[in-house]
Amino acid sequence: MLEKLKEKVCAANIELSKKGIVIYTWGNVSELDAETKLVVIKPSGVPYETMTPDDMVVLDLEGSIIEGHYKPSSDAPTHLEIYRNFPEIKSVTHTHSAYATSFAQAGTPLKAFGTTHADYFYGEVPVTRELSEDEVASDYELNTGKVIAETIKRLNINPVAIPAILVKSHGPFIFGKNAENCVHNAVVLEEIAKMNYLTMNINPHTMPIPQYLLDKHYLRKHGKNAYYGQK
Amino acid sequence: MLEKLKEKVCAANIELSKKGIVIYTWGNVSELDAETKLVVIKPSGVPYETMTPDDMVVLDLEGSIIEGHYKPSSDAPTHLEIYRNFPEIKSVTHTHSAYATSFAQAGTPLKAFGTTHADYFYGEVPVTRELSEDEVASDYELNTGKVIAETIKRLNINPVAIPAILVKSHGPFIFGKNAENCVHNAVVLEEIAKMNYLTMNINPHTMPIPQYLLDKHYLRKHGKNAYYGQK
Amino acid sequence: MLEKLKEKVCAANIELSKKGIVIYTWGNVSELDAETKLVVIKPSGVPYETMTPDDMVVLDLEGSIIEGHYKPSSDAPTHLEIYRNFPEIKSVTHTHSAYATSFAQAGTPLKAFGTTHADYFYGEVPVTRELSEDEVASDYELNTGKVIAETIKRLNINPVAIPAILVKSHGPFIFGKNAENCVHNAVVLEEIAKMNYLTMNINPHTMPIPQYLLDKHYLRKHGKNAYYGQK
Amino acid sequence: MLEKLKEKVCAANIELSKKGIVIYTWGNVSELDAETKLVVIKPSGVPYETMTPDDMVVLDLEGSIIEGHYKPSSDAPTHLEIYRNFPEIKSVTHTHSAYATSFAQAGTPLKAFGTTHADYFYGEVPVTRELSEDEVASDYELNTGKVIAETIKRLNINPVAIPAILVKSHGPFIFGKNAENCVHNAVVLEEIAKMNYLTMNINPHTMPIPQYLLDKHYLRKHGKNAYYGQK
Repeated sequence: MLEKLKEKVCAANIELSKKGIVIYTWGNVSELDAETKLVVIKPSGVPYETMTPDDMVVLDLEGSIIEGHYKPSSDAPTHLEIYRNFPEIKSVTHTHSAYATSFAQAGTPLKAFGTTHADYFYGEVPVTRELSEDEVASDYELNTGKVIAETIKRLNINPVAIPAILVKSHGPFIFGKNAENCVHNAVVLEEIAKMNYLTMNINPHTMPIPQYLLDKHYLRKHGKNAYYGQK
Repeated sequence: MLEKLKEKVCAANIELSKKGIVIYTWGNVSELDAETKLVVIKPSGVPYETMTPDDMVVLDLEGSIIEGHYKPSSDAPTHLEIYRNFPEIKSVTHTHSAYATSFAQAGTPLKAFGTTHADYFYGEVPVTRELSEDEVASDYELNTGKVIAETIKRLNINPVAIPAILVKSHGPFIFGKNAENCVHNAVVLEEIAKMNYLTMNINPHTMPIPQYLLDKHYLRKHGKNAYYGQK
Repeated sequence: MLEKLKEKVCAANIELSKKGIVIYTWGNVSELDAETKLVVIKPSGVPYETMTPDDMVVLDLEGSIIEGHYKPSSDAPTHLEIYRNFPEIKSVTHTHSAYATSFAQAGTPLKAFGTTHADYFYGEVPVTRELSEDEVASDYELNTGKVIAETIKRLNINPVAIPAILVKSHGPFIFGKNAENCVHNAVVLEEIAKMNYLTMNINPHTMPIPQYLLDKHYLRKHGKNAYYGQK
Repeated sequence: MLEKLKEKVCAANIELSKKGIVIYTWGNVSELDAETKLVVIKPSGVPYETMTPDDMVVLDLEGSIIEGHYKPSSDAPTHLEIYRNFPEIKSVTHTHSAYATSFAQAGTPLKAFGTTHADYFYGEVPVTRELSEDEVASDYELNTGKVIAETIKRLNINPVAIPAILVKSHGPFIFGKNAENCVHNAVVLEEIAKMNYLTMNINPHTMPIPQYLLDKHYLRKHGKNAYYGQK
């Protein structure tokens, strides 16, 4: 079932490695099938070198394995909690890419320091709070999803317009309209995190760009008045 | 028309990606044909992997599409404004290369800290002022070109001798005598920005090199008394 | 003798170079054969490009050459001292990877700043004390092994759970359950050292993660209740 | 003439690019033929991609072109001044590798922070003084060689034991016993400069290693009691 989607999700996972933002098996991508409400996700701990579409795992939104000969990524409950809370999110990616993860470790959000940021993220990429001892002790991966949802709702963020979040002490989770787009956003997030790092070191007093510049760049690429790219 | 030039401009755009200074479609190169006063530029949002010379767009200096089945790069009005103001500039490149963009975000010019800089840039690479809300609201890309021209004129810079500028909060625009040379300058700018970053971190009190050393290195490679390279 | 093991150790040494964590011959890997108590180690100063399994050197735990036409790595006495002290360690790797070596030079341990660290290292990766003049003057490589053992014992560390140590002014030594796993840990150590570097620069006040999060991540991948990966 | 040496020098120049420490034509290597006292050097401004052994230029120690259809590297007078002053130096390399050049720009010597440094450089790698206006105005490249010689002599350095120097505001010059060894040292210098940079950022109070550790590491690889590598 969902053979086409398995191919796309498998390719997206391998793309993480090709783009150099994950080493070994340090990342996972899933995509939600809009019609069946089933999620295709990477299996846990299988090397990218030998992974095939057939190794992908199909889950329903409650986490039951519908198809697959492997266990799903141990982060699957986080992915599912995100899909349950935000129906507009169609794909989730998790990586440990070095710059984005370091901002997550430092508890420092990614400010919108330039138009590169504004082309993809319509405002600051936030950091969640630290999970409590209880939240870690039981249903840790589910609670990671809950703290992501809590943060997005508390800050009143549209996760389509700011398609990433940094989980404190952990790393980035990235969103997209499909697996390919989601990995694209993950690569961009890492590049933007690198630029944030450099910018803060060059001038620690750098301020975020003005709102009107953020609006301009985000809206020339996204939304109904976008004019970037081809029709 | 201009088939040879389309090949060169297409190759120059692809070279940006090969040299590792742009990811995805984060860059664009154009070149002005001296005879016809037409500009060949990259189409908007077309991946480098599949781009062919036939995809290039031919514009006149007022921005009318003379030939091409794609929309031109959304930055085309910036390129054209530069060509209109500085007839000595024959090619324009725009990238989001990480170090140069971070200096643009930080609002910090690239000081001439060494002979590597002096071999290519005859003085500090400046940063423009931030565009105003009005300038961003209408004709944004045109106004980006205007603030570039304003800065070069205000600082009394020869854009052939200092063939790059950083647009505040945005990134570098690089100039050249043709598309190949312009991409070469873009790669060099990124390397020099990296060295500036490292130098400032090693010793925050580093001073620019003396004028006589700047003169020596720039003039041994450029101008009528140059003696670097072969005849 | 031990032909299979020689192949594995040779491949593991070459993997160091492929993963980009050593240049030239700046690293060495050995593995202990559990049955014979013999150690297979890289020869000294032989380039990775031409190295074959047949070039590996077989030593007993006292350092006598049992087989091999080359001298063993000059760091062999350090490897053997580690095997003699910690029978649970089955493989040792030494590199001069840039980030880990720089922490060793700075005398700064790798704090557990995030879950990436916790997935592999169950606590801070320590730095040894500086060797004394006497320790360096005679049996230097043996004494390097002794100061490693001393540090692990003084800090009451389980070297299976924290499979790496930084030798002050020198560089990292990494442990594993076999040569392949040991090189994997060496690559991970370098990535974690890089993230530590970035994290400290983003926020110098970053604290280590809470013990409960360290426990959770380490124990979901290691030990009898692990649930990461496939059975 | 000297066909074998031209092949070696050409290969060494290309190796600079392969190892990623120079971009475009930003480096040059020469070697002195011990018997004829002639120097083979890279031509000026010829791309590495198309360079062949036949393009190398043969000079005598006074700088006369003995053979070659190209002009020699514009840095040739610097190379020759080094050979004339230090007969023990058989090869010279000049690069603009990013980390080493940044230390040269900052005027900061490379302290011996660890054993990686001590394995190759028997003490701090110094920086020259800035050249005066007169020294730059006439015979600039010759005077660059003179300030290198002056610095080595003033500091009473053995340039075989510390085979590199940073020219203030310019970049590194590296020495070797032949072209291949010299490029090896240039690659190592860049790696050590990178580690110096990281070490200083991790702990600005890091002290150089003790003299006894410097002695041990340098002398186990160099001189009559060396025991590293094979016989």
